[in-house]
Amino acid sequence: MAPKNKTSFTLKTPKGTKDWAGSDALLRDQIFSTITNVFKRHGGMALDTPVFELREILAGKYGEDSKLIYDLQDQGGEICSLRYDLTVPFARWLAMNTDVRSIKRYHLAKVYRRDQPAMTKGRMREFYQCDFDIAGAQFDPMVPDSEVMKIVTEVFEDLGWKGNYTIKINHRKILDGLFEVCGVPQEKIRTISSAVDKLDKLPWEDVRKEMVDEKGLDGAVADNIQTYVVRKGGRDLLEYLLADEKLTANASAKAGLDDMSLLLDYLDAFGILDKISFDMSLARGLDYYTGVIYEVVTEGSAPATATSAPEAQALQRSAKKDKKIDADEDRSNDPSVGVGSVAAGGRYDDLVGMFSPKAQIPCVGISFGVDRIFSITKARLERENKKNTLRSSEVDVFVMAFGGKGFTGLLKERMQICRSLWEAGIKAEFSYKVKPKLPAQFKAAESNNVPFAVILGEDELAAGQVRVKEMGLPDGHPEKEGILVDITSLVAEIKKGLERKTKEENAPVDEAADIAQKVKDLL
Amino acid sequence: MAPKNKTSFTLKTPKGTKDWAGSDALLRDQIFSTITNVFKRHGGMALDTPVFELREILAGKYGEDSKLIYDLQDQGGEICSLRYDLTVPFARWLAMNTDVRSIKRYHLAKVYRRDQPAMTKGRMREFYQCDFDIAGAQFDPMVPDSEVMKIVTEVFEDLGWKGNYTIKINHRKILDGLFEVCGVPQEKIRTISSAVDKLDKLPWEDVRKEMVDEKGLDGAVADNIQTYVVRKGGRDLLEYLLADEKLTANASAKAGLDDMSLLLDYLDAFGILDKISFDMSLARGLDYYTGVIYEVVTEGSAPATATSAPEAQALQRSAKKDKKIDADEDRSNDPSVGVGSVAAGGRYDDLVGMFSPKAQIPCVGISFGVDRIFSITKARLERENKKNTLRSSEVDVFVMAFGGKGFTGLLKERMQICRSLWEAGIKAEFSYKVKPKLPAQFKAAESNNVPFAVILGEDELAAGQVRVKEMGLPDGHPEKEGILVDITSLVAEIKKGLERKTKEENAPVDEAADIAQKVKDLL
Repeated sequence: MAPKNKTSFTLKTPKGTKDWAGSDALLRDQIFSTITNVFKRHGGMALDTPVFELREILAGKYGEDSKLIYDLQDQGGEICSLRYDLTVPFARWLAMNTDVRSIKRYHLAKVYRRDQPAMTKGRMREFYQCDFDIAGAQFDPMVPDSEVMKIVTEVFEDLGWKGNYTIKINHRKILDGLFEVCGVPQEKIRTISSAVDKLDKLPWEDVRKEMVDEKGLDGAVADNIQTYVVRKGGRDLLEYLLADEKLTANASAKAGLDDMSLLLDYLDAFGILDKISFDMSLARGLDYYTGVIYEVVTEGSAPATATSAPEAQALQRSAKKDKKIDADEDRSNDPSVGVGSVAAGGRYDDLVGMFSPKAQIPCVGISFGVDRIFSITKARLERENKKNTLRSSEVDVFVMAFGGKGFTGLLKERMQICRSLWEAGIKAEFSYKVKPKLPAQFKAAESNNVPFAVILGEDELAAGQVRVKEMGLPDGHPEKEGILVDITSLVAEIKKGLERKTKEENAPVDEAADIAQKVKDLL
Repeated sequence: MAPKNKTSFTLKTPKGTKDWAGSDALLRDQIFSTITNVFKRHGGMALDTPVFELREILAGKYGEDSKLIYDLQDQGGEICSLRYDLTVPFARWLAMNTDVRSIKRYHLAKVYRRDQPAMTKGRMREFYQCDFDIAGAQFDPMVPDSEVMKIVTEVFEDLGWKGNYTIKINHRKILDGLFEVCGVPQEKIRTISSAVDKLDKLPWEDVRKEMVDEKGLDGAVADNIQTYVVRKGGRDLLEYLLADEKLTANASAKAGLDDMSLLLDYLDAFGILDKISFDMSLARGLDYYTGVIYEVVTEGSAPATATSAPEAQALQRSAKKDKKIDADEDRSNDPSVGVGSVAAGGRYDDLVGMFSPKAQIPCVGISFGVDRIFSITKARLERENKKNTLRSSEVDVFVMAFGGKGFTGLLKERMQICRSLWEAGIKAEFSYKVKPKLPAQFKAAESNNVPFAVILGEDELAAGQVRVKEMGLPDGHPEKEGILVDITSLVAEIKKGLERKTKEENAPVDEAADIAQKVKDLL
């Protein structure tokens, strides 16, 4: 071997990245397949794009976040960067495939951001996104947008979150209109919008300071903005804004409010109005949104730093008196560690046209942050004591051998039994020792919760039989020592046993969880 | 929107990369899940590592191929490179997790090589690998190695290849031994081994030229090597080599031959000896292999350039007279476009120790090249006229509306029907127009082969009914115009219809039922 041993550097993954192994990797895969099933149920087509794009594709799409893009080194040839999200690659694909005039596509893949990692909050430099987007030129307003919200609720219900999440929505045209009405100069609208977006993490006082001191906004204009952006609600808030004559006189705000009115109607038809909070402080950082925007939050979404200044609290209280305030507000003051939003998205009608004006096609979509969803789901499973049901691999049968003096190890016989199990689709393994000790074989099976052992002995084999032992039976159980089975009926016997165990495990565990949930709901 | 339209650059994916969409993406996902199922059946644990590693992790692992590694730009912070394979990241993980002393792990992910792309041969710069590896310190020789071969056969059988593949095997210790016996100087062994590995692409004449002219080997030594490396076979070849006293006097060659003898025994126990070709020309390019090595080839694996020089052909013919020659040899002269090997791997006992001597752990594994497997599988489906059964999305029901004068479009009613279908797990879609035209709705359903239409009309709705129409029924069929169904039994009706259609499609098209099942599993 040419290369020498090298131990002069730290053995680690790069900053902000991690390995996923064992039960964590399996749980994440289960989350992926839950999400993919919802996407397919809504007619999604799978799209997979390269992990890097020509750097020019990404340029000018991400506003202040462009500095977070990872670049590939120039090794001769094209200049490329790692993708920052899955939305811009989708828009690039649409601009290249101009025959596609209407499409629902999904994409589950890693994206890359040179951000300051915060592992405990699930903020990584390499992380998964699961995106669903609807593109189409001929659609009527807010119809696809409302289906995207419906998808959000199905994903979280299928993940077992039982309504414990809120979809915050707002509209870029309403925001732009109110900034105009409040007196924000045109060229400052995007940057003031970015400041407003921080209201879920910072008190109003700090955001106002950023607007006035850093971004040079007039203090009175900032105070005007405040009267709007602290408001949250549902149809009530929409009616309140529609009654604001200054606002409805603004063409952009009026168009946004009309969209919002349609959207709430459609969400009602889908039966998900109770999951929505119309939140005027939601602005979203990215440049490319043009219509409705949304973010999904849950318990644990709130960051540890969210303590409101007294003035902002007082204002929120007065807003509360006026209007129904979303339950989420109280959570946002929870000092427990938060992980931020678990899904986010919006409408981006101009992004494809930035690549090719003739390919212009309006789009709306959602991106699920799987790493955060994973952290929350895993914590729930641990609370519910279901963690131990997650195994790092899924073996059904451990094929063992034992014998007395002159024991050969029966290696080839174990191989042949495994072969017949594998070929019947049964997950099986055996010791890689020629003469394994029986206790070591049992220990290997027990350490991974393998449910069945098949034990080979020379005398039994001579009679065409093997012993099948269900693991973990209590002392005194009539089958504690296993049962002798003809080799010809081994596969059938194992399949029967596995079916029975699956039934046993599924029934009572779910029932117990339901009861636990009901008790929790009562408390 | 801040950014301006930019159309001054070519809209494309980077060189050697491509987008995967629609039915291609679905077929590839099905291949992934077939392979994953085999890996899980053998007790594999899922591992996912970052797409980039610290550059020092990859350094000194890939021999002549190191120049193909993609580097990330130094943007301040750590120096990183994109992963070149999944083996080195696995070894790095083992070296970091010293509590793991025995593991079977699988990993499906993209890897990156700045190679000259050849799209038609499926050689890309970004491509998927599907790896299964077994690591363990206490195992007896060749037991895990033989299970890896068994996994290879299960993957290709489950993919429906029906035995149409060959596993070429060889052993690094046999090769190193024979190079010593032939008189290759110690420091030239690795580079001469790389030259031998090209024998599947180049005639002997060219390889000899590389050895003698480029690598400075004595011509007589090269001729000695030739007498060995043209040989292929099975147990017969092993016996022939064991009878070669010069060879067996070499400790390395003897150890390799003993391993090979055990391996053939175990492959026999697994019932897969007929899939194996012991091929002395197989050398594998990578530095890190230390024991058995293998490569899986199939029809279409042979490259277009593989025309042997007359001398080499004559030698191969004489070898054929001596010994049984693998059927693959004839294919290797097929001038049709080839895609190279579809899977490859081997034993690498020293790689983990290169990161940390105290973490040393022997490993053996296999890597499946999914992009090549995809090309071959897709071509087969097209030959079998099954391509048209691959849909780009999997919608079961298109929910439509129609009406005469004063037609409202029944948008909310379509939404409510879709909602009830989705919540029952049925894949459904509807037009995003407020007042869609009936022909346009049918066209949308037909263009994606949606099997059922649910048609809403105002009169039927008033009576609590909708029309269910199976698409594609012939003229004159009694249910050509659909049947009226109570809304309360719509879900049950659709489920019944879908079950019936699934059964109809499953009815054996091919004569052997299990072959039909395998093909269907792919679709």
